[in-house]
Amino acid sequence: MSALKNRRIVLAARPKGEPKDADFRLEELDVPVPEDGQVVLRTLYLSLDPYMRGRMNAARSYAKPAELNEVMPGATVSEVVESRTPRLSAGDIVLSYAGWQEYAVAPGAALMKLDPTAAPVSTALGVLGMPGMTAYTGLLNIGQPKEGETVVVAAAAGAVGSAVGQIAKIKGCRAVGIAGGEAKCSYVRDELGFDAAVDHRSPHFAAELKAACPAGIDVYFENVGGAVLKAVAPLLNDFARIPVCGLISQYNLASLPEGPDWSPALMTLTLTRRLTLRGFIVTDYASQSGDFHRDMSAWFRQGRVKHREHIVEGIENAVAAFQGLLKGENQGKLLVRF
Amino acid sequence: MSALKNRRIVLAARPKGEPKDADFRLEELDVPVPEDGQVVLRTLYLSLDPYMRGRMNAARSYAKPAELNEVMPGATVSEVVESRTPRLSAGDIVLSYAGWQEYAVAPGAALMKLDPTAAPVSTALGVLGMPGMTAYTGLLNIGQPKEGETVVVAAAAGAVGSAVGQIAKIKGCRAVGIAGGEAKCSYVRDELGFDAAVDHRSPHFAAELKAACPAGIDVYFENVGGAVLKAVAPLLNDFARIPVCGLISQYNLASLPEGPDWSPALMTLTLTRRLTLRGFIVTDYASQSGDFHRDMSAWFRQGRVKHREHIVEGIENAVAAFQGLLKGENQGKLLVRF
Repeated sequence: MSALKNRRIVLAARPKGEPKDADFRLEELDVPVPEDGQVVLRTLYLSLDPYMRGRMNAARSYAKPAELNEVMPGATVSEVVESRTPRLSAGDIVLSYAGWQEYAVAPGAALMKLDPTAAPVSTALGVLGMPGMTAYTGLLNIGQPKEGETVVVAAAAGAVGSAVGQIAKIKGCRAVGIAGGEAKCSYVRDELGFDAAVDHRSPHFAAELKAACPAGIDVYFENVGGAVLKAVAPLLNDFARIPVCGLISQYNLASLPEGPDWSPALMTLTLTRRLTLRGFIVTDYASQSGDFHRDMSAWFRQGRVKHREHIVEGIENAVAAFQGLLKGENQGKLLVRF
Repeated sequence: MSALKNRRIVLAARPKGEPKDADFRLEELDVPVPEDGQVVLRTLYLSLDPYMRGRMNAARSYAKPAELNEVMPGATVSEVVESRTPRLSAGDIVLSYAGWQEYAVAPGAALMKLDPTAAPVSTALGVLGMPGMTAYTGLLNIGQPKEGETVVVAAAAGAVGSAVGQIAKIKGCRAVGIAGGEAKCSYVRDELGFDAAVDHRSPHFAAELKAACPAGIDVYFENVGGAVLKAVAPLLNDFARIPVCGLISQYNLASLPEGPDWSPALMTLTLTRRLTLRGFIVTDYASQSGDFHRDMSAWFRQGRVKHREHIVEGIENAVAAFQGLLKGENQGKLLVRF
């Protein structure tokens, strides 16, 4: 096996603003020979997620930064092509954290074996994986949706947002999605069953959002920030909950935007409407993994939670796909198939 | 009794920015004759509180706005001078919501009789009243301070802030106060027993705050907003809690301040450090009134919670005192004695 060549993408420079092609470098190396207890993995699917933009910065965050000149980290669904552990055999499909590369050598003990007969293996990176669990734990723990309440989610056609709205429906809420463009809006409304979808690119976005939320907003699942948050804010009801999951609109900000300074308005709303804003990442709720897999797998099998994948072919297209993700060009869970 | 004259202060205009003298009007009227079930009250102490600035605006808030040309609302400790209810007798001292006036006629059923032998009656407007209960409920419910954590409170020499820091000490925390000027800081540190006090007017405020919080900040009790919040923010630890109780630095803002827009930075911190910001008002926790009175009265008697009153004499000085309150000119609970 040692003749295998691995192509990988490393972080060549920390992006300033939008990640540029030159911030990455495609390299080819030999695949290392596995040691006892290790396996050689061939990547089938690489997950591209907005959080990766944060990891490209050096700043303190909840995950440690990606290292310069090291492979970009990322979750994968991989096939075992050589095993030096009795736990796994060649041909097994596993969930791994192999990063942006075609092959990886990893300790067998850390890998979760997937059952390809239970669900398509790619769902372990989406609706039945980290994005689905992010939606589930953030909405239920922080959002605490109650029957009849209005739940608004931004980036509603994305991997997390689409799950948030569908879980809100299961919990008896009015689900309102915000997405960019009519194609995404009709997907959210007509295929996923949200009660309404509002296009944030519309010149009448704020008025349309208000019309879609006649009883105000009780839960705003925040994936976006910026102008979307500013349109949501005046509609928030007393005691509204805001799980802060992501801020994709501002990940590329190289410095604070021009004024006026809106933070006093946000703080005033927090005070006078007794809002709860809480940031989280899915690993904060790792102990709820069993609940998530039980509930979400059942909902998925029953067709109550649908999903869509946006698949790009080949590692050489990963950078462009990631750049597009930050611009909202994907619809559904973005994956690179190798 | 009908010959009594009542002097009162009404809201003459909604202030733009800082409240000006012309926004208020001192009037003299006859005291109405009480009906059955009512009492005539003579104000002993009027409480002046920062929240009153918000009520002078017409905007939606947690309390309905003060009405133009009506008496400014406010809590008082008052003496019953005439009673038409068997529940109360002339000479009784009660907690009322009589507003900025010397006399009031009120239904006897709504008044809480005070026991002048248990504690000075003025404390019912401060440490043993609404400000104390604001500190107690906000800190314990939202702040959830744990032994050994660092609790920072702004406006630390004020009625609420001074109680927050002392309760934090009782709970085994490091208490750090932020206040304006050395007199307030030494009061907070030397008389109230905070571990440290930092002057927000110091040119080295941010560095001094950092030095006072060597283990970061776990709870920031927010009374101020603005520049103080911006200095606190980078010091917040993962999973820090921020009870949002007041925003005195921005109550006079007539429009949003100039940029840059700091709100994306606040949202990023909320996300990456998994902060919890929650607005509240004391009435949200009305059901905890029994717990508060039991604990705080005991701490007060034991000398574990101290207080200070800033007393201004006479209704004709109420407007200037309130203007000073918004500038931080008081030290301790601001009261007008009639």
